Amino acid sequence: MTSVILALNAGSSSVKFALFEPSEADELRCLARGSLDDTGKQPSLTIGGEERPLQLGDAREDARRLEHLFGTLFTVIDETLEGREVAAIGHRVVHGGPDFSAPVRVDANVLEALDKLIPLAPLHQPRGLEPIREMLAIRPDLPQVACFDTAFHHHLRPPVSRYAIPRCFENQGIRKYGFHGLSYEFVAGRLAKTAPELAAGRTVVAHLGNGASLCAMRGGRSVDTTMGFSALDGLVMGTRSGAIDPGVLLYLQRAGGIDVAGLEDLLYHQSGLLGVSGISGDVRALSESGDPRAGEALDLFAFRAARETAAMAHGLEGIDALVFTGGIGEHSAKIRADIAARLAWLGVAVDSHANEDGASKITAAGSRVEVLVVPTDEEHVIARHTLREISVQP
Amino acid sequence: MTSVILALNAGSSSVKFALFEPSEADELRCLARGSLDDTGKQPSLTIGGEERPLQLGDAREDARRLEHLFGTLFTVIDETLEGREVAAIGHRVVHGGPDFSAPVRVDANVLEALDKLIPLAPLHQPRGLEPIREMLAIRPDLPQVACFDTAFHHHLRPPVSRYAIPRCFENQGIRKYGFHGLSYEFVAGRLAKTAPELAAGRTVVAHLGNGASLCAMRGGRSVDTTMGFSALDGLVMGTRSGAIDPGVLLYLQRAGGIDVAGLEDLLYHQSGLLGVSGISGDVRALSESGDPRAGEALDLFAFRAARETAAMAHGLEGIDALVFTGGIGEHSAKIRADIAARLAWLGVAVDSHANEDGASKITAAGSRVEVLVVPTDEEHVIARHTLREISVQP
Repeated sequence: MTSVILALNAGSSSVKFALFEPSEADELRCLARGSLDDTGKQPSLTIGGEERPLQLGDAREDARRLEHLFGTLFTVIDETLEGREVAAIGHRVVHGGPDFSAPVRVDANVLEALDKLIPLAPLHQPRGLEPIREMLAIRPDLPQVACFDTAFHHHLRPPVSRYAIPRCFENQGIRKYGFHGLSYEFVAGRLAKTAPELAAGRTVVAHLGNGASLCAMRGGRSVDTTMGFSALDGLVMGTRSGAIDPGVLLYLQRAGGIDVAGLEDLLYHQSGLLGVSGISGDVRALSESGDPRAGEALDLFAFRAARETAAMAHGLEGIDALVFTGGIGEHSAKIRADIAARLAWLGVAVDSHANEDGASKITAAGSRVEVLVVPTDEEHVIARHTLREISVQP
Repeated sequence: MTSVILALNAGSSSVKFALFEPSEADELRCLARGSLDDTGKQPSLTIGGEERPLQLGDAREDARRLEHLFGTLFTVIDETLEGREVAAIGHRVVHGGPDFSAPVRVDANVLEALDKLIPLAPLHQPRGLEPIREMLAIRPDLPQVACFDTAFHHHLRPPVSRYAIPRCFENQGIRKYGFHGLSYEFVAGRLAKTAPELAAGRTVVAHLGNGASLCAMRGGRSVDTTMGFSALDGLVMGTRSGAIDPGVLLYLQRAGGIDVAGLEDLLYHQSGLLGVSGISGDVRALSESGDPRAGEALDLFAFRAARETAAMAHGLEGIDALVFTGGIGEHSAKIRADIAARLAWLGVAVDSHANEDGASKITAAGSRVEVLVVPTDEEHVIARHTLREISVQP
């Protein structure tokens, strides 16, 4: 039997999964990929280029949707990937808190520690822990590895990581953590292979998806990032506000009669592109809409992304490369062009043909800053860490 | 009788006042200045270079301190400024809300409208309105003019002025207002006179005092600023947090058991330099302290000011001049040097001798960006507006 790794990525708007087989030269070969998203699309799994629907019934609404999902996945794996067995499952976990700075094999004690971090990311942390809990119950023999979105930024220190509040709160773990670390790690690894001179330099990576953030990287390490203590800060997102004057939160509670639960729902689920447009949180839908509010929402998205790129460049004392990744970063030529145009003063220029053609290098002739598009692969990073964890376990 | 204008500036940590006499060539001559501050210093008034203590008793603690103050001021004016009478009082008012975009003569109706803006700046707005209310009661004949800290930024439009929250809130007035406008207006006016080519260009003004913000200016007009809806956003301040992940506010209420009143007190009064150092919110005290936490607080202050200068430069597509003003900006050579050093990548370099000598131009030879220190004079701006308002009134 050949061992394969199942990587599970329960993000804010979908569950993605992928199967990887270790091959020579320390590479991982992807055998299958699939996703279950919340947008009403039929769940599917693609194996060997062939897409097949996953029959999960109304599993999205179902408390047992994970059991359904795993049952179906394992059946499909048994049927189609003869002679292979799942040796371990790797999971994306949003928050590692102050203590988890690297991937970790999860047992009951670790799970308990990760549960305690739920208040740090009340809306995102449970999504990553649910499948771990489920698998520990139904397949206690199978190693589970948690890979943290915060780990890539774990070494950030004051003043970058510090908020200007009384020291006692920092001692309680209130600091900038940063997120999207698995994506940034993938991009850093890809750059190191394909453009080592850029990887060594000053790079701003824009992970623009349903959640969105920037990372200032030097030599493949995080120097600053736009998300902070929570996944709410920084850029405008699909339904999240990003950075907002703390006085607005005080005012809405004081004068607006909104309680803290209402505020949380407002800032996480009703704001961002959705709130500004009043139409949709999806860049594709907004790009196709003729409503002026759709254009205004996209304008705010690009403005804020560019303004924060300048703040990231500050952490790097300049910028040599700008890399787009994530669903929007990889697929919206319009958003890339708009952000780049606003950064002309920093030496960024995009070739419009290369950009519209979806090329991986979209730098215009004469641009001082290299502009790249790198499709991210968080599942690949999860699988690599998982393989490493189970190999080094006794 | 010659008419003089009394300018009153009730700021976050002091009440400053000054008397101005119109002179030829549309200039205002300052006859006297004084202040009443909250730091325990003896209130004083300087007339003709001679400082005299103001006998206000324990007026700082006194509900009638304004009556005391005005009584004393008018007596001193009568005694020492023979042949002159106060023709009007101009006041600094923090918030003009969505409607007041320029100085306005205050009557009972206007005062009522300004009272309605208190929820927008609950801790600052009452300080500016109290003396107006007092004077309308005891000297109803005397014109009162309100000058707004928000007016200088009033023309800011989306995307700069917009938060990524549902559109209905913007319609209710939740937008970026910006503050310290009287100070920025003074600096813009001074630059236009002394360095017109810089005034026409891309200037970042750093108003660093007990409250602190940056303004990106082009041609003397605000293009962006770090404060927002409230005076809490942006830079680290004496006791205010400045920008902070909104998720921290949600967490402190959800998991930290702090209510909204406690949060307001925490972020306005216990945070900033005071919170990080645990020692003081005063840059002078921290600069003299040997405690490492004092150094860490100053380090965070300079880091955040520099990082936000990069964001301001984005609004200007570059930077030609950096101007320091406000108590810290005018008097702390160390803070100026520290911020400038972090901005070397944008072409900022300070001459250390000129900086330590308190010169008005501190640009190093070869610096691409001009670096200036301009002592601000909000009272002068208030008096100028007040004179103009009463001149145009029927």
